[in-house]
Amino acid sequence: MIPNTNYNQLKDSYLFSEIAKRVAEYSNLNPEKEIIKMGIGDVTLPLCNAVVEAMKHAAEDLGKAETFHGYGPEQGYDFLREKIKDYYAENNVELDLNEIFISDGAKSDLGNILDILGKDNTVLIPDPVYPVYVDTNIMDGRNIIYADANESNGFLPMPDYSIKADIIYICSPNNPTGAVYNKEQLQKWVDYAISNNSLILFDSAYEAFVADKSLPRSIFQIEDAKKCAIEFCSLSKTAGFTGVRCGYTVVPNGLVFSDMKLNKLWLRRQTTKFNGVSYIVQKGAEAVFSEEGRRQIAENIMYYRENANIITNTLSEIGIKFYGGINSPYIWLKCPDNMGSWEFFDKLLYSAGVIGTPGAGFGKNGDKYFRLTAFSSRENTQKAMLKLKNLID
Amino acid sequence: MIPNTNYNQLKDSYLFSEIAKRVAEYSNLNPEKEIIKMGIGDVTLPLCNAVVEAMKHAAEDLGKAETFHGYGPEQGYDFLREKIKDYYAENNVELDLNEIFISDGAKSDLGNILDILGKDNTVLIPDPVYPVYVDTNIMDGRNIIYADANESNGFLPMPDYSIKADIIYICSPNNPTGAVYNKEQLQKWVDYAISNNSLILFDSAYEAFVADKSLPRSIFQIEDAKKCAIEFCSLSKTAGFTGVRCGYTVVPNGLVFSDMKLNKLWLRRQTTKFNGVSYIVQKGAEAVFSEEGRRQIAENIMYYRENANIITNTLSEIGIKFYGGINSPYIWLKCPDNMGSWEFFDKLLYSAGVIGTPGAGFGKNGDKYFRLTAFSSRENTQKAMLKLKNLID
Repeated sequence: MIPNTNYNQLKDSYLFSEIAKRVAEYSNLNPEKEIIKMGIGDVTLPLCNAVVEAMKHAAEDLGKAETFHGYGPEQGYDFLREKIKDYYAENNVELDLNEIFISDGAKSDLGNILDILGKDNTVLIPDPVYPVYVDTNIMDGRNIIYADANESNGFLPMPDYSIKADIIYICSPNNPTGAVYNKEQLQKWVDYAISNNSLILFDSAYEAFVADKSLPRSIFQIEDAKKCAIEFCSLSKTAGFTGVRCGYTVVPNGLVFSDMKLNKLWLRRQTTKFNGVSYIVQKGAEAVFSEEGRRQIAENIMYYRENANIITNTLSEIGIKFYGGINSPYIWLKCPDNMGSWEFFDKLLYSAGVIGTPGAGFGKNGDKYFRLTAFSSRENTQKAMLKLKNLID
Repeated sequence: MIPNTNYNQLKDSYLFSEIAKRVAEYSNLNPEKEIIKMGIGDVTLPLCNAVVEAMKHAAEDLGKAETFHGYGPEQGYDFLREKIKDYYAENNVELDLNEIFISDGAKSDLGNILDILGKDNTVLIPDPVYPVYVDTNIMDGRNIIYADANESNGFLPMPDYSIKADIIYICSPNNPTGAVYNKEQLQKWVDYAISNNSLILFDSAYEAFVADKSLPRSIFQIEDAKKCAIEFCSLSKTAGFTGVRCGYTVVPNGLVFSDMKLNKLWLRRQTTKFNGVSYIVQKGAEAVFSEEGRRQIAENIMYYRENANIITNTLSEIGIKFYGGINSPYIWLKCPDNMGSWEFFDKLLYSAGVIGTPGAGFGKNGDKYFRLTAFSSRENTQKAMLKLKNLID
């Protein structure tokens, strides 16, 4: 038996282990000093009450013969798909129910979607970016090319017609840069994809943080996107579902490549290799979209937005250049004094006890940048920003 | 963009849609007649109380800041892996914690495991069998050969050294035949795998139904299996988790092919393409292994076993030959009067109002056989067997 030797091409992911190592060293040297984590991508607020009650109720359902649910549909229960359909309709996106697939999170579907795509496609991935796009394609042996995201394009690379890409990753609002494409910019990507017969994989995991109503929350707000794009979304950041695990993927019926309908391929993939998301989790997800749930999660999003405000206000005040933080939970700052991202990491840790994420971990273009997140507590966010101010001023 | 064209080689799965079509026709012609479903692979008893209470408690945990859990380890929480380690130890199988991966069900991992295996391997699959093994390999374009399971080998095919297989599927207790390998037989498969440098994918989803203590419940009860086998297990049938979604996969550290450690590859696959099973579900699964949970699920298994007894006693009484039903929830009967499996399906439906699953749906060797399951209610099982008796006598 020969294993998948493409795995030999994967680089070990040192980012979070290297952060942990450096923090441990600091703690050993400074056991009495407080450390404030401003680099985490996980949420900190608990689930809202509507979701908790719905899941408790669902667990009770499964304990009674009259209301027991066994195998559910692999693509998700209609009670949840209907809510998502309505959620899209709020932005004037009309979906058929069969275009919506419930997942256990965007990460699973972003990886698994590659099952239905050929290995000989060339993949275009922005740099810097969420490392999963790169690694999942290396595992399949696909040719990867990069689109540079940098200050000159506001970390929003635009299509280059001299380059032929078959599969294009777009993450907006972006992880890690927090940059958000506007409709005109996304329209250019859709136009490029259609003229090149390419497929866009659109990661909208942070759409709930888009406050500016003129910015698109879904690629399907762009004309013709249903002919060239799959969208991946998640309740992880929207509703604090990082430990609950639920997301959704939209595969339009209009996606036809080499006479093969991608919606049909994905349905076959999911019915063959997946057994659906837990009934309890889907009931919790349904509650996210209830009136009460919507109100409660809006409060949580507001809390994180205010954290982002505190961070961006501080950075503005002390003259550190940054991107994101307005329609995004991520703040991407330019390291002061032309420091490298690991150098700034050490400085922030040793001089202020604050931990962030070095941009180098997201690609070569991240080398002089640093990611902070809005997911800490209010108290820690305020404290960290005070320390940063004292450090820089 | 070129899709994965291997999907063009998949045959449409007509089995359950064809059953549904024939049942609908019957119902239209006989609207007043009762139909008893004896073909379902889903469980019918509700979750036991220990599991329901654990999941309610876990949902409450997530609703409070002090006990909130966000992203968990992709490979599962140690609180659950420890329980599974102890469960294996009861059968004298010693596992390292890092060999145990929590999954959202055996179906997911049986499909996803192929990510870490090369495409050029030849795959040996028993016929008849659970259709997922075949389809997932067609999706990857692997060469598939079949091991005939028939009356002459008691539906337990043994290795043939003249055939070189790189990946070998074994499901014991078997779906659909209910046949169970003994230790000597499994040892022969392990010996074959080691001498051929093959990997065994062992599906033990029905291990909880093994009553005979001399029969293996895990392939790791066989010497040297840790050098050649991965095991997939599920709480679906053990604890009625078909709608809750939790299983586990054991990838021993001793599996090394082409200098690549499969455990490390699988860990990388899961950390890249998966975000772990819901905290709530894992808390429910932990309760399955508590003293109270074990007692409660044992009662459910006994209930299904008694259903299987009622079925096998009836078949013996009326002289219909069968396999399984003793250490398995599946009863695989030979259609009377040399009938084909669809012919018998129609006869049973039209003369008795009973639905089962035609063996032809599981492969060519299933053509003259028929699957009944022990998962119906007691009342329906008794009623269906009475009708079968009247039909045959």
